[in-house]
Amino acid sequence: MVAEEFELYKRLAWERILRDKEIGYLDPDIFDVLEVINRRPKAFTMSSCSGRVTIVDAEFPWERKESSVVFKNHLRVTVEDLRDNLSRRPRKRYWLIVQGPIFHVYTGDLKEAWTVLSVARAVGFKHSGLMVANRKGYLVELRTGVRMDHLLTEGQNLEELAEQAMRVLMKGKERKERLKLAFLSLKPDEPVELGENPVGKALE
Amino acid sequence: MVAEEFELYKRLAWERILRDKEIGYLDPDIFDVLEVINRRPKAFTMSSCSGRVTIVDAEFPWERKESSVVFKNHLRVTVEDLRDNLSRRPRKRYWLIVQGPIFHVYTGDLKEAWTVLSVARAVGFKHSGLMVANRKGYLVELRTGVRMDHLLTEGQNLEELAEQAMRVLMKGKERKERLKLAFLSLKPDEPVELGENPVGKALE
Repeated sequence: MVAEEFELYKRLAWERILRDKEIGYLDPDIFDVLEVINRRPKAFTMSSCSGRVTIVDAEFPWERKESSVVFKNHLRVTVEDLRDNLSRRPRKRYWLIVQGPIFHVYTGDLKEAWTVLSVARAVGFKHSGLMVANRKGYLVELRTGVRMDHLLTEGQNLEELAEQAMRVLMKGKERKERLKLAFLSLKPDEPVELGENPVGKALE
Repeated sequence: MVAEEFELYKRLAWERILRDKEIGYLDPDIFDVLEVINRRPKAFTMSSCSGRVTIVDAEFPWERKESSVVFKNHLRVTVEDLRDNLSRRPRKRYWLIVQGPIFHVYTGDLKEAWTVLSVARAVGFKHSGLMVANRKGYLVELRTGVRMDHLLTEGQNLEELAEQAMRVLMKGKERKERLKLAFLSLKPDEPVELGENPVGKALE
């Protein structure tokens, strides 16, 4: 059903990653994970994120329209970052958003989709799911519950807030590392063994 | 593969819902949505939530272990609720968490899973996905991006915070209503037409 174009999409996606890396467009701490996932013959990654801190001026933290990102960093946030950005009045509201890592993985068949899902779930990507099937293959989103969507108001303790945001960010980075190790310990074309894998087992 | 037990699980799940409703264990504003989804012959719902506000004493907002829920309400939160609960010191930290509606739907086959997914996605349940397949069927989680995970610190403007939390909660309730209407407008055993449905279309 899917799949004859899969090889082509996989190659194009990898070339895009290399190009993005070259021009500094890729998240600074994501390439090693992408490499490990893309080594699998029946999987490739699309737009993924290693986890990040943003300050967004928006009505609601999930809104993209009529919102603007006033700060973004994949590695750290400091009290000064918060102070600098809060010194200007927002058009709507300022939200401090910390987001865990998110990977979008296309797989060539359903079996590989379940394998990727169960590997990810086992290392803390608990909000992962198969989102859609299209010409590129089966799209699996790997997502943790690690996050913070904090309303920035006057009079807050910015030291405490920056510290807490960093702790959330680091929790996300830990999961990212665990994901890499989990895929590294799996042979590239090895499906998860039935019996090790609650998903696969359930499919018997 | 799945399915001969599907009818049984569907019946048991519905009886459980009626029992929970009877004893007041069900969320106060969820039954009508569950009814509409469970009317579909190839779908039934398990633990779902209509959206809620909680205050949690925890290291991190996503943690269940060593955390305690000190406030929970599916319909509202007031300044007094915040003030009352913040008057005691937390063991870890207080997080004000607003969560949009979440539905867990088991479907009897993959086609119905894609139908449920695409109906939900079209009305703002954008983080929905097929999570797992097991003896009960295909588990689809319907989830919005509506949420707030706010660190409660000293000196915050509680009026502003309660107001904002209510606005987030209401956004979630709106999506829940849209989900109900979307399922209502679909015939119970009608799959989404190819062509109306990007997911189905992609599966051709």
